[in-house]
Amino acid sequence: MDDRLKKQIDFILEIDKEKNILRQTHLSGHGRQENDAEHAWHTAIMAYLLQEYANEEVDLLKVIMMCLIHDVVEIDAGDTYAYDDENLATQKDREDAAKERIYSLLPEDQKEKLIELFDEFEAGESAEARFAHALDNFQPLLLNNSNDGGDWKEHQVDSERVYRRHRQTRLGSEKLYEETDKILQENIRKGNIK
Amino acid sequence: MDDRLKKQIDFILEIDKEKNILRQTHLSGHGRQENDAEHAWHTAIMAYLLQEYANEEVDLLKVIMMCLIHDVVEIDAGDTYAYDDENLATQKDREDAAKERIYSLLPEDQKEKLIELFDEFEAGESAEARFAHALDNFQPLLLNNSNDGGDWKEHQVDSERVYRRHRQTRLGSEKLYEETDKILQENIRKGNIK
Repeated sequence: MDDRLKKQIDFILEIDKEKNILRQTHLSGHGRQENDAEHAWHTAIMAYLLQEYANEEVDLLKVIMMCLIHDVVEIDAGDTYAYDDENLATQKDREDAAKERIYSLLPEDQKEKLIELFDEFEAGESAEARFAHALDNFQPLLLNNSNDGGDWKEHQVDSERVYRRHRQTRLGSEKLYEETDKILQENIRKGNIK
Repeated sequence: MDDRLKKQIDFILEIDKEKNILRQTHLSGHGRQENDAEHAWHTAIMAYLLQEYANEEVDLLKVIMMCLIHDVVEIDAGDTYAYDDENLATQKDREDAAKERIYSLLPEDQKEKLIELFDEFEAGESAEARFAHALDNFQPLLLNNSNDGGDWKEHQVDSERVYRRHRQTRLGSEKLYEETDKILQENIRKGNIK
């Protein structure tokens, strides 16, 4: 096999491990915990379906690629729960090391492109990154709401923290934030969020 | 919530079920069975990484969307194993009914677009559909090969049938077929394929 294809296949097999990284969110229908690959697939389809609600015009392919690849670093760094302060403090260092190791499996040009995409997502400053972040938040919100807020109840999170996280959705999509706000208010009323 | 967004969210929650549709392929590292959402995520990333090997120039966004959405019908129709003649005979009817029910959850314009994309994939006549099919075959081949051909051994498939399936990879990518052929020959030599 030529060296370039071998590197690409090594990376493809390495990221298979993302299917074993569990998130705190549970599948709709009170199912098991979701994994990162499933979450990425779901948000990528949402990018296509909900693109009309992005605040700014976006390059859809770029948004989809951000949705598909930004959690690859969690193969080494693990999933950091949005309300886990201790792990949030070390998240960037752990993910930077993971980024370097995993993307280095690829041919140099593809490594550079994917790291650029990942860094752009993390910085959250482009229209695409802002919309991808909105989707990254809105997807677990929909699942959790469909499960009567089970994930919020389990972790006993309060409204201030939940809003702190979801407020960034507004930067990518006013419309999805409006819907987020309705869902959060309903869950606060029901006592699912303290 | 306005009616359009409600329909989109209904569809988004419906396709969550794809995460429970198990395939015959096992995750690398002799893991559990893979599900459709994970497979779709994996092939979509492969479309990005391996686009240089498509026989013809392709619209990458279209290929990725084909990878992401074509298995949605299996929520109702189930996964049809590539070497299961009985179920292959009824596959089209089952999938057509599923397609109509599931995509009808969406607003009409998005229903039409996704059905068009699905039909184009199924017909396998465009450059994008041919390359998406090549990836759809190449992904489980890589996983299975990384597991010492465990899935072929379990189902005792013979080389004629395996080649009948994988030969279509050639229509989308000569290069990926060349690699497929090497992998198959090695697994025949090892006795993993009869």
